[in-house]
Amino acid sequence: MPNYISLMTDYGTRDSFVGSVKGIILKTNPQAVIVDITHEIGPQDLWEAAFTLGEAYKDFPKGTIHLAVVDPGVGSGRRPIVVVTESYFFVGPDNGIFSLIYQNAERIRVHHITSTHYFLPNPGPTFHGRDIFAHVAAALAKGVPSGNFGEEITDFVKLSVPAVKRTDTGLEGHVVHIDRFGNLITNILYKDVHDLTPDGGKLGTMKIAVGATEIKGLKKFYGEAAPGEPGAILNSNGHLEIFLYRQNARTSLSLKRGDVIRVTL
Amino acid sequence: MPNYISLMTDYGTRDSFVGSVKGIILKTNPQAVIVDITHEIGPQDLWEAAFTLGEAYKDFPKGTIHLAVVDPGVGSGRRPIVVVTESYFFVGPDNGIFSLIYQNAERIRVHHITSTHYFLPNPGPTFHGRDIFAHVAAALAKGVPSGNFGEEITDFVKLSVPAVKRTDTGLEGHVVHIDRFGNLITNILYKDVHDLTPDGGKLGTMKIAVGATEIKGLKKFYGEAAPGEPGAILNSNGHLEIFLYRQNARTSLSLKRGDVIRVTL
Amino acid sequence: MPNYISLMTDYGTRDSFVGSVKGIILKTNPQAVIVDITHEIGPQDLWEAAFTLGEAYKDFPKGTIHLAVVDPGVGSGRRPIVVVTESYFFVGPDNGIFSLIYQNAERIRVHHITSTHYFLPNPGPTFHGRDIFAHVAAALAKGVPSGNFGEEITDFVKLSVPAVKRTDTGLEGHVVHIDRFGNLITNILYKDVHDLTPDGGKLGTMKIAVGATEIKGLKKFYGEAAPGEPGAILNSNGHLEIFLYRQNARTSLSLKRGDVIRVTL
Repeated sequence: MPNYISLMTDYGTRDSFVGSVKGIILKTNPQAVIVDITHEIGPQDLWEAAFTLGEAYKDFPKGTIHLAVVDPGVGSGRRPIVVVTESYFFVGPDNGIFSLIYQNAERIRVHHITSTHYFLPNPGPTFHGRDIFAHVAAALAKGVPSGNFGEEITDFVKLSVPAVKRTDTGLEGHVVHIDRFGNLITNILYKDVHDLTPDGGKLGTMKIAVGATEIKGLKKFYGEAAPGEPGAILNSNGHLEIFLYRQNARTSLSLKRGDVIRVTL
Repeated sequence: MPNYISLMTDYGTRDSFVGSVKGIILKTNPQAVIVDITHEIGPQDLWEAAFTLGEAYKDFPKGTIHLAVVDPGVGSGRRPIVVVTESYFFVGPDNGIFSLIYQNAERIRVHHITSTHYFLPNPGPTFHGRDIFAHVAAALAKGVPSGNFGEEITDFVKLSVPAVKRTDTGLEGHVVHIDRFGNLITNILYKDVHDLTPDGGKLGTMKIAVGATEIKGLKKFYGEAAPGEPGAILNSNGHLEIFLYRQNARTSLSLKRGDVIRVTL
Repeated sequence: MPNYISLMTDYGTRDSFVGSVKGIILKTNPQAVIVDITHEIGPQDLWEAAFTLGEAYKDFPKGTIHLAVVDPGVGSGRRPIVVVTESYFFVGPDNGIFSLIYQNAERIRVHHITSTHYFLPNPGPTFHGRDIFAHVAAALAKGVPSGNFGEEITDFVKLSVPAVKRTDTGLEGHVVHIDRFGNLITNILYKDVHDLTPDGGKLGTMKIAVGATEIKGLKKFYGEAAPGEPGAILNSNGHLEIFLYRQNARTSLSLKRGDVIRVTL
């Protein structure tokens, strides 16, 4: 079984940063197999990082080490950590980037990385993705036990994750991500919608309102909507999603991350 | 020999989509070696996908599985297919994305993927790249015979591929792609040009007209043109290509995909 | 030990170019492990290519073959070369793209690639990244001695690399790169700054001036600056760097590559 390391950063793909991180991983662990999630997280956008990792991590083989670096506090006192769940490892800064892992995993253990002999003796102040995290991920992939990197901590940082509210008339949530196609992904989940209509009887008639847009009922697939017609769907990751068939809902409907979405029966 | 799987999608590289597809492939087939062609096909741009795959697929090792997903019909009745040629496999939706493979390959066999035990029992409605195609590609790479995925079909979908016309005075074709450098790639091929002047005698004097631009003769390499001078060349993939040396022909000459190009002696 | 080949080009990631290069490498050498540095070097921007490779190459495992193609002279008489240093190989056009390697390496040997049997017999005029360089890199990775590709040359092309000047009052350098975050990377190095204040006593009070911006003293990490405050730091690659904490220094300070930076005590 290869040693898989996934990478997610806000480094972009124009500079030398990602190449350097990969080089160091392979120098430390020639058997590592590196897989990119993305390097185009918005600069320092911790929520986007947390959300994107939350969507992708479970699709990887058991044992994968997810290296995630969005790190405005690099070089300061913020702690480098290793997170261990029942199926995966995570390596990155302790700034909330793993918030959805903490929320989803059954068991977590978080270690503050302090064993300096696993990484550069004098890491520079601006590039811990290379100087610390790449080394630690590569060592984990070689089988170094997570406990070796440092003491367990319990006061790790969590972002405030937007919650879905049950209202008198239905559900209130938020647009939490906008994807490449301009689809608006909300934090309202399959189970929230099905709590509202347990037998599914109202799926075709519920009202979904976001910004100035009102949508009636859920579609079963994108193409059920006419081109340019706004639609709502429970997507393949279980999120309620607003789309415009073959168009860009974000630009056409002038919606943005953080916008409120209301579902009523 | 590793099991190569190439990926081409319109998923972009910002979201979690590509990471998820790769994770699932490696979960299913830890020996797979994944190579990106591109994930920046314009959203739902089937022609761009067909063209890009048509340019790249032959450069891969024999036996490579090309996974290609641009899929506006995802979740609807459009069929998932496996295409088998003398040298490669192709996995994706039956929407014309493989049109240039159908045109180029000596022998093709197309299977409608219906054997649900090779993929997710309940694929979601929006992400068959992960829920169906990744599983099938990984299974093919493990040696599952293509016939196992479903029955052969013959009514698979083809895009109408723009053809080159022989006119009284020469050739008429179209700009079919514009590359990163702003070069205009046309559907006029090496053999079309050489049919026109079998001994090559007119290569230096033929007239090439596209939009408001008139070019005299073919260049042998880009640098033969002066900086900013429009030139025409038979490129390394055998296409007649319009360029501006060290500049961007698309923006400078205001040309676009679909524009007519005429070659006359 | 796998055969690592890094790739850096200006091909972008939308077209079929990068996929084709990777396909050919794997066709020639199925054991090669390919790692992208970047494909988003500005079209034909040789300095950006030289700088980016200069930042990344040392982070790769010893023996890595760095394939670098930014090649406005493709198809003309410009020479294809293999560069050998004490730790790495480099393959690409002889146009200055390896200038910082020549400057940094202790020993270099440069071979003009003329042994046509290692690559395509009739390479096209526009895509030597695929038709020549990919073949040569894959052959090198298989252990073909660099001398087999052609004669050693000594008149290889070097870009004029901007130098740091010691002035009466301090140092004068240039912005040589702007990264994804909008940070301005200069050619002033750790050693230049420490020559100026050998005991480090003036690090906190030295004046850094670039464009209309004046900065007092060096920060030890980004977060030491207030959000929106311009700061200067010696970054993890040893360059003096100008930044705006959590903002984009390039756009906010209206600075660009080539701008002069002055450090005074």
